[in-house]
Amino acid sequence: MPNTFGHLFRITTWGESHDGGIGVVVDGCPPRIPLTAADVQADLDRRRPGQSKIVTPRKEADVCEILSGTFEGQTLGTPIAILVRNEDQRPEAYKEMETLYRPSHADYTYQAKYGIRNWQGGGRASARETIGRVAGGAVARQIFKKVTPKLEIVAFVSRVHDLTANVPLEKISYAEVESNIVRWPDSADAERVIALIEKTRAAGDSLGGVVTCLVRNAPVGLGEPVFDKLEADLAKAMLSLPASKGFEIGSGFAGTLLKGSEHNDAFVNEGGRVRTVTNRSGGVQGGISNGEDIVFRIAFKPTATIAQAQQTVSVTGEAAELKARGRHDPCVLPRAVPMVEAMTRLVLADHFLRQRAVAGE
Amino acid sequence: MPNTFGHLFRITTWGESHDGGIGVVVDGCPPRIPLTAADVQADLDRRRPGQSKIVTPRKEADVCEILSGTFEGQTLGTPIAILVRNEDQRPEAYKEMETLYRPSHADYTYQAKYGIRNWQGGGRASARETIGRVAGGAVARQIFKKVTPKLEIVAFVSRVHDLTANVPLEKISYAEVESNIVRWPDSADAERVIALIEKTRAAGDSLGGVVTCLVRNAPVGLGEPVFDKLEADLAKAMLSLPASKGFEIGSGFAGTLLKGSEHNDAFVNEGGRVRTVTNRSGGVQGGISNGEDIVFRIAFKPTATIAQAQQTVSVTGEAAELKARGRHDPCVLPRAVPMVEAMTRLVLADHFLRQRAVAGE
Amino acid sequence: MPNTFGHLFRITTWGESHDGGIGVVVDGCPPRIPLTAADVQADLDRRRPGQSKIVTPRKEADVCEILSGTFEGQTLGTPIAILVRNEDQRPEAYKEMETLYRPSHADYTYQAKYGIRNWQGGGRASARETIGRVAGGAVARQIFKKVTPKLEIVAFVSRVHDLTANVPLEKISYAEVESNIVRWPDSADAERVIALIEKTRAAGDSLGGVVTCLVRNAPVGLGEPVFDKLEADLAKAMLSLPASKGFEIGSGFAGTLLKGSEHNDAFVNEGGRVRTVTNRSGGVQGGISNGEDIVFRIAFKPTATIAQAQQTVSVTGEAAELKARGRHDPCVLPRAVPMVEAMTRLVLADHFLRQRAVAGE
Amino acid sequence: MPNTFGHLFRITTWGESHDGGIGVVVDGCPPRIPLTAADVQADLDRRRPGQSKIVTPRKEADVCEILSGTFEGQTLGTPIAILVRNEDQRPEAYKEMETLYRPSHADYTYQAKYGIRNWQGGGRASARETIGRVAGGAVARQIFKKVTPKLEIVAFVSRVHDLTANVPLEKISYAEVESNIVRWPDSADAERVIALIEKTRAAGDSLGGVVTCLVRNAPVGLGEPVFDKLEADLAKAMLSLPASKGFEIGSGFAGTLLKGSEHNDAFVNEGGRVRTVTNRSGGVQGGISNGEDIVFRIAFKPTATIAQAQQTVSVTGEAAELKARGRHDPCVLPRAVPMVEAMTRLVLADHFLRQRAVAGE
Repeated sequence: MPNTFGHLFRITTWGESHDGGIGVVVDGCPPRIPLTAADVQADLDRRRPGQSKIVTPRKEADVCEILSGTFEGQTLGTPIAILVRNEDQRPEAYKEMETLYRPSHADYTYQAKYGIRNWQGGGRASARETIGRVAGGAVARQIFKKVTPKLEIVAFVSRVHDLTANVPLEKISYAEVESNIVRWPDSADAERVIALIEKTRAAGDSLGGVVTCLVRNAPVGLGEPVFDKLEADLAKAMLSLPASKGFEIGSGFAGTLLKGSEHNDAFVNEGGRVRTVTNRSGGVQGGISNGEDIVFRIAFKPTATIAQAQQTVSVTGEAAELKARGRHDPCVLPRAVPMVEAMTRLVLADHFLRQRAVAGE
Repeated sequence: MPNTFGHLFRITTWGESHDGGIGVVVDGCPPRIPLTAADVQADLDRRRPGQSKIVTPRKEADVCEILSGTFEGQTLGTPIAILVRNEDQRPEAYKEMETLYRPSHADYTYQAKYGIRNWQGGGRASARETIGRVAGGAVARQIFKKVTPKLEIVAFVSRVHDLTANVPLEKISYAEVESNIVRWPDSADAERVIALIEKTRAAGDSLGGVVTCLVRNAPVGLGEPVFDKLEADLAKAMLSLPASKGFEIGSGFAGTLLKGSEHNDAFVNEGGRVRTVTNRSGGVQGGISNGEDIVFRIAFKPTATIAQAQQTVSVTGEAAELKARGRHDPCVLPRAVPMVEAMTRLVLADHFLRQRAVAGE
Repeated sequence: MPNTFGHLFRITTWGESHDGGIGVVVDGCPPRIPLTAADVQADLDRRRPGQSKIVTPRKEADVCEILSGTFEGQTLGTPIAILVRNEDQRPEAYKEMETLYRPSHADYTYQAKYGIRNWQGGGRASARETIGRVAGGAVARQIFKKVTPKLEIVAFVSRVHDLTANVPLEKISYAEVESNIVRWPDSADAERVIALIEKTRAAGDSLGGVVTCLVRNAPVGLGEPVFDKLEADLAKAMLSLPASKGFEIGSGFAGTLLKGSEHNDAFVNEGGRVRTVTNRSGGVQGGISNGEDIVFRIAFKPTATIAQAQQTVSVTGEAAELKARGRHDPCVLPRAVPMVEAMTRLVLADHFLRQRAVAGE
Repeated sequence: MPNTFGHLFRITTWGESHDGGIGVVVDGCPPRIPLTAADVQADLDRRRPGQSKIVTPRKEADVCEILSGTFEGQTLGTPIAILVRNEDQRPEAYKEMETLYRPSHADYTYQAKYGIRNWQGGGRASARETIGRVAGGAVARQIFKKVTPKLEIVAFVSRVHDLTANVPLEKISYAEVESNIVRWPDSADAERVIALIEKTRAAGDSLGGVVTCLVRNAPVGLGEPVFDKLEADLAKAMLSLPASKGFEIGSGFAGTLLKGSEHNDAFVNEGGRVRTVTNRSGGVQGGISNGEDIVFRIAFKPTATIAQAQQTVSVTGEAAELKARGRHDPCVLPRAVPMVEAMTRLVLADHFLRQRAVAGE
């Protein structure tokens, strides 16, 4: 429920940005999967703040500790608890939040829902919450490394504000994406994006954009026909990420401008394997993966925290002006990439185990 | 899991298009909610085939029977089973499907996943599957009628192919939407849409488009901060509908072209109630409803079944040509409207009960 | 939740004793399992009323219909809906229940919990509710027939009131148990039990007793270490049956009179297989099946419905006397046997699939 | 699933006896419940080893840290993570376990299920696993303190081996139970029990017995009619505890020796409240609490770890003799008492929230 994601491979996350730490319990991981803290740390480092000049300068080493569930470098089949302590807490930077609701943040809705909130930071609404997701996704990656090593998941920033990447999907490579600080699929083209982000930050403003996720060599048969369609679970996973406002798979919203005769993916036999000529389905048909690339896009709004004065109200209802002092990202997209990858892995791992239960091999 | 949706208010659906019938078990409905078969039938009639010249001519009365869970016109608090028999089955119309995979349908993926499929129709992938959802949504509506009667949910077709509706959200009315066969928010403007659909059908082709859903007077505080954000559960609900390819809430994909200073929703005190000046958040902040209108859009692809010859392969891998003979909708949008409403009600009812459990009043 | 049992192999049951019928949706059944209505009917006939002179004379054919989830005699992997109509309803026999609470029945607690109840029979508290469980268990049996055909589940009445069966576990046979109307493990000994039941019924009274369940050739490795221990899930399954008051596995309550040195099951190597010399563990160690016989016992209280006058109160609080006129069993034990078997199968099928998901083969 | 217990109020536990620690995530706790580490510590101290001469001398302070979910001494409504570090680890004491299976322990079944195990202690099968349960139960207690302060839960040791406590239920008091190291309901009578335990320990042997749990002033209406009957969930909770072999509620197994006319609980009106004259139902009718005392008993087998030589096999199948060197309890009963209480609280808290969701007040 609230803080658990997945059915067979499931994570339960916990932690506020300003308290003892952030963590995750991964339950349902098969035994004898190689797993060390270094495997998890590698992914955490990718989502960590302070990585580059275009992300928040909050300094958190985000060092993880695996507290349970492994023995001599392998999973035991028991729950894997992973802990990351909070370090660089500056509650004083959030002092205004005790009395003011930040626009387009969760302050007001938390207060309305719970009648209480930890105002010394974003609480569960902080991007730090995603540490648990990324750590869980790292465990999922270890499973795939063992059971289906050809599976490849690459997420990348495909648009920032009005700057669009123009790289054909078949040329997207993880190495290229990770080689620049925007996680842009074409490093040679990344500078104009970096420049826009820096200029926007200097203006005390923020940017949104789109992350595209590409899954190659996914097994055929993942997903369920009705409610737990693969795209439905991916949509939920993505819309559960902070700042996301939209999800589309395959042809998506643009596909609604095609006619059926233009949109349908014709089948062909390619060396004994059923393939589609086009991939407007985005790798999923009837809720179930068909073996083609799974391709989807997620819209992320511009960061709500900006350095400009904004109109708001106080907890007692008075009109007020707020100017954020906390540290923040002018553009969440680069750090959203590893989050998108992690959520994708979590969805796929869950459906992989579900299918294995039913199919029996 | 696979065929269950929701946590506290939950439906479990079952049924193929060509077998004993379609049904739903609604579990978790509070007791003493007024409910009769007529309440359910009203919604089923809206999603029924054969309603108008622009939808499939399949003739199914889709008469429902409430088998359990009510007594003297009120719910008992026990599971409510609702059954709709299949009537107008014509398995012969699907004879080709025994050996051929229909492009952009679920035939191939079902076969790959299960090693078996009911080829005499769409099985669970048929739009008939949504009968259970709509029936469940009707039960949810009865709850809201009693506990929060001002809640209003209106879905409507906002785009068909390249024809867009231009009605401000505040002027959208359920009566107007239901007064024309496209479920277009402006009846005076509906004829051009109907004409396009008819022309496309005559050409043996099909159209996609966008449904917008508007929730007025939603309670504040629905949704959870992390995985079960209200928009995440709505996204899953919508992407689980047949033919849907995308979801966006509030500013959605277009909002990524705004800067933070343009996108943020300033707070104001309106007669003692915290309101936002704009509603780019779409009624949800930090995953939790804020009392503003909840607004989201769903992309539906053009119907996969078309009357033109298409390239495909047979179950034994031979190249083949397929020309559909089954009955089908040239545009699923009008019939998708009650499905979208139903799924929205299911999500809201579940979160309403969840919040009531935690908040205690 | 309330009306769903199981995680991967799960049933959702619905239905009151006096309304449209009783049914079950079985979700999570693997595809390509042979299944026909006759397979289900065989088990339903064993739990049906009116089978013999010692059970309730209520005449219900309890004919089942499989509404979905199969095709040409095999499961599709989609939900299997099974319906049994109610037939022999005599609401007039329950007229007193509109105003009086039957002692040791659920009338009062249902009223207190829901503020409403279907007083024309036992509603969900009727033994008819178990039809859905038995039908679901029949589906589970078909799975085991295919995947682990040596698995054998035999439940039997081991005690009625103060009459105890004395048959060593290794001599228990399904055929013998089913050959007499008490489901006593020794037919030659059954007459004295039948005589006691008939005498008690003649006196307007009722009897309780114990059902023992024996599982032979269970796979090793079923069950989870902590909350979902195999015995924990069996205990829940059994205590969820109407009229059950206790559960014990292996040495059970009597084992508490042994010392550790007497109670421990020594390990031996028997032809390359790890076995235990004794089986006080009852086939489960640390929550996980060890390959020995799984043995447990369930206490069933005497039937609450008796033909003698009883003291009670009315719904408005007045003291009253009640004398039941409905039809009922003087001893639920014989009909509880197929229910116990069904619940055992449901638990084992669920854990079998769960283990298959994790173990991967 | 495996390591999660509860639906609305749910705990997820993790941790082996010999690794980073033991912990729990409590999800679903309502906001604004007073909660500090001291509240949790009080319960942990009661289940801690090393409390007295009759329990294991393992020295673990078991100091807990609340890592998340509270703010200024109140719950936030977000997940509450609680961590207890392992301290007194002596893996060398378990060296034999690397190669030998301890009789009536989980070593063999873990190995068979997972193909791997942490042999440096009991892993998840260690009694240390119950730390998470007890911590979760402490949170549940805080809820009840606020919402239904008259609720009282007292568990006590009612039998050790063949020594039985003879205190009427109405005279049982928490203070008396906690005043002696056996948690015997009559301190004046406790010495003979202590003497038996000490004598048994000296002989290198161990004892089992029975814990009784008494719930006073439980709300009416908790529990569900079918699978989630209150007694079913209690049975599962209790059978999930290490070393438990049986559960009975109300009249239990002994009640099967009564006739219906003797067993039924007549209703009476007591000052406007519906009461029963007797309480053979044990406070639950039709799966739902009726407001009478909830009374149940749990059988705990003698501790499997004994200081005598035992016959076993090695992981490679050779016959071997094992003599335990680890520290252990000669009788688990006294330390089982707080575990039973905790599990009872968890079950009641979950059903309390579930009922609140449905009933709406």
